[in-house]
Amino acid sequence: MRQLYELCGENRDVRFSPYCWRTRLMLQHKGLEFDPVAITFLEKQPLESAGSRTVPVLNDNGTWVKDSFDIALYLDDTYTDKPLFGNATARAQAVVLNDWLNRTLVLGIFPMIVADLHGHLDAKNAAYFRETREKFLGCTLEDAQGTRAEKLAPFRASLAPLRAALKQDDWLAGDAPGWLDYATFGPFVWAHLTSDIDLLDKDDSLHAWRERMFDLFDGSTRAMPRAV
Amino acid sequence: MRQLYELCGENRDVRFSPYCWRTRLMLQHKGLEFDPVAITFLEKQPLESAGSRTVPVLNDNGTWVKDSFDIALYLDDTYTDKPLFGNATARAQAVVLNDWLNRTLVLGIFPMIVADLHGHLDAKNAAYFRETREKFLGCTLEDAQGTRAEKLAPFRASLAPLRAALKQDDWLAGDAPGWLDYATFGPFVWAHLTSDIDLLDKDDSLHAWRERMFDLFDGSTRAMPRAV
Repeated sequence: MRQLYELCGENRDVRFSPYCWRTRLMLQHKGLEFDPVAITFLEKQPLESAGSRTVPVLNDNGTWVKDSFDIALYLDDTYTDKPLFGNATARAQAVVLNDWLNRTLVLGIFPMIVADLHGHLDAKNAAYFRETREKFLGCTLEDAQGTRAEKLAPFRASLAPLRAALKQDDWLAGDAPGWLDYATFGPFVWAHLTSDIDLLDKDDSLHAWRERMFDLFDGSTRAMPRAV
Repeated sequence: MRQLYELCGENRDVRFSPYCWRTRLMLQHKGLEFDPVAITFLEKQPLESAGSRTVPVLNDNGTWVKDSFDIALYLDDTYTDKPLFGNATARAQAVVLNDWLNRTLVLGIFPMIVADLHGHLDAKNAAYFRETREKFLGCTLEDAQGTRAEKLAPFRASLAPLRAALKQDDWLAGDAPGWLDYATFGPFVWAHLTSDIDLLDKDDSLHAWRERMFDLFDGSTRAMPRAV
């Protein structure tokens, strides 16, 4: 039995956490079957077995693993086919890239879709989300998202290091998708499912890469229910 | 015969290019003997054999290779002992990290030491440097460096992804120095040799890592002549 605990909105079929998407995609990369279990922000109780306060959490036949990066390492150690990293150097480099992606991509997208996210939650979760996220942002959700047009150009510019990889190969991890592709794509799926913002220009090499990522696994990510 | 063409100042023993340092360190990592050949900004002629306008350029027994990143790939393909990457995934990830390091670290340090750099050049090179770099910066060298106190805090903050790696290991590339360590250390050597600015706080995990890097290869980098 393998269960992936994923964040959901008021519509429990909308699974929108960028971190959960990373894990879902890496399970698919490995060809591992799993039961997705939807929980809201406030449904913390199922996470206790993993000693976690946040999703994703994986229950792999009784072995509980938390944190999308640690789950990636666990999956690569436990299921060695179709490696996500392949050696210790790639893993160590991925620690730096993971931190950079979380700062640049996740925290870059967050204020541009934060009011949209709020709109997809039930009343109790919406109140919790507003309180915690407005404290974090130092302004209202609507004020943060209200300036997204100004935020878009610097956000796009900040992704330049990823474009350097796409000058060489179709995938960020080389000639086949790897950890870096899934870690980068997760935040884009988050925005796609919850907002109508167009994060990437059509001429951007990352736009074509994102389409290739949506095509993976028989287009199953593209087929997921959106909140918009 | 193996020659590394390196940038020098008016004092030709001062070898200060961040990119050349990356190559010098990787040659040392591989245990490969080489003759360092000093050239100034204006001595472009020796670079023609490699079809390059910039240092570093490596002449490896008649095989000419340019660009510090391409030289790293060449060295790892040609001399497979003591790998810098180890697999294709680490190489692909390094393309992203290399671009990020050049933007964040090299371009972050550059305006903070640019007037110092100018001061270490002979008259002709200094005039060339001022003209080209002031065009690039959009201000005088002195104005750029004049606000370095304000630039230091955001520069230090921008290095956070590197600190994530040092929470796990002594080296950025894992349990031994690798490409990522040399690619990151090169720009710090550049600043160390040419400026008295203290780029890192003493409590910063990167400060202790930088000391470990200076200790490598019998402390030979620490022993290099400084312009200051």
